[in-house]
Amino acid sequence: MSELTAGRLSVYLRALNALDAAGVKTVSSKALAEQFHLNAAQIRKDLAYFGEFGIRGVGYYVKDLKRQLRAILGLDRTVRVAVIGAGNLGMALADYPGFQQEGFAIVGMFDADRAKVGRRSKGGVPIFHIDTFTDYVARERVDIAVIAVPAEAAQSVVDLVVAAGIRAILNFSPGTLQVPPGVKLKNVDLTVSMESLSFFLARGEAADGQA
Amino acid sequence: MSELTAGRLSVYLRALNALDAAGVKTVSSKALAEQFHLNAAQIRKDLAYFGEFGIRGVGYYVKDLKRQLRAILGLDRTVRVAVIGAGNLGMALADYPGFQQEGFAIVGMFDADRAKVGRRSKGGVPIFHIDTFTDYVARERVDIAVIAVPAEAAQSVVDLVVAAGIRAILNFSPGTLQVPPGVKLKNVDLTVSMESLSFFLARGEAADGQA
Repeated sequence: MSELTAGRLSVYLRALNALDAAGVKTVSSKALAEQFHLNAAQIRKDLAYFGEFGIRGVGYYVKDLKRQLRAILGLDRTVRVAVIGAGNLGMALADYPGFQQEGFAIVGMFDADRAKVGRRSKGGVPIFHIDTFTDYVARERVDIAVIAVPAEAAQSVVDLVVAAGIRAILNFSPGTLQVPPGVKLKNVDLTVSMESLSFFLARGEAADGQA
Repeated sequence: MSELTAGRLSVYLRALNALDAAGVKTVSSKALAEQFHLNAAQIRKDLAYFGEFGIRGVGYYVKDLKRQLRAILGLDRTVRVAVIGAGNLGMALADYPGFQQEGFAIVGMFDADRAKVGRRSKGGVPIFHIDTFTDYVARERVDIAVIAVPAEAAQSVVDLVVAAGIRAILNFSPGTLQVPPGVKLKNVDLTVSMESLSFFLARGEAADGQA
């Protein structure tokens, strides 16, 4: 299964959460597609890959399908996340409601600025000194590190994170970072999203709608 | 041309910026692909779509190709951006270095909290009251609105932004938002990126590397 499929399963899970919160018990691929601007055939194909979730004439049981998708995405246990960098971006990520909703636990922020150490985000995530990161990881399980430091510090922070044994990194710093084999680095480049909008405005074509 | 292609052109532009900054004058599709974990055949295909940029035996002139890509992406003029919500996320986005690099001008943040009005981000972006947004847009050109408000306020903010005449919206709030035809809404769901990492950890398969 590709990362692209994983991305789509995440999107389906978002949609199912919304349906579940609204008290909806069952949903067809067609209704799911229409309500959330998705592709019904693609939904059926993606879900069929994992066995027979759907029931003919009924569609999918929302709670069942949610549980299955969560298991496939590795969310059936708490995923522990450390945020490196306690600036505005780090603070925003530490308290990002979507992470908590899916059961990610933001265990701490780590920063080089001693003035920030001991404080907490609005949501209560504590700030530790970056020098204590390696010991922290040796003591407590950390599954994912989020990099929210200035670009010039990013590679050295990634090296530190990798040396501490972290195998999955979500990076918000611009620029290209190097990781050794066996470590997954996922770059979030917000400029790409912004440029798809400037592209839309420049072309002004029929490409309106959601994405 | 699809939005997916626009996304890839953005990624190429990032790579070319890095090469240009390093003083590189020409680059082949093969070298570009290898250095930035891209697909050489895809690069040639995407660029061929816009005419003959490459020169046999030389590859692409870095500065030339940058200028062409910027024009295609609508970056050959200043794109003016307003950020709605001056919390941690809004502040981080207002000062996001990638936006300034590509020539996006963050003209202001707009917030409902009067205590924040008159202040500025670290990078100097001023905060205005949200009640002044419609007048601001009538007076000054705003091309893109970025939504960085809590989920419960997001739809009413989007309605306000659309009523003010904005046609391109970058949304960071979780949940489904409605826009009328002719308006482009791009949702950035950070949970999807995080879940692709938890998926990787759960599977632990060969799927390592950059994405």
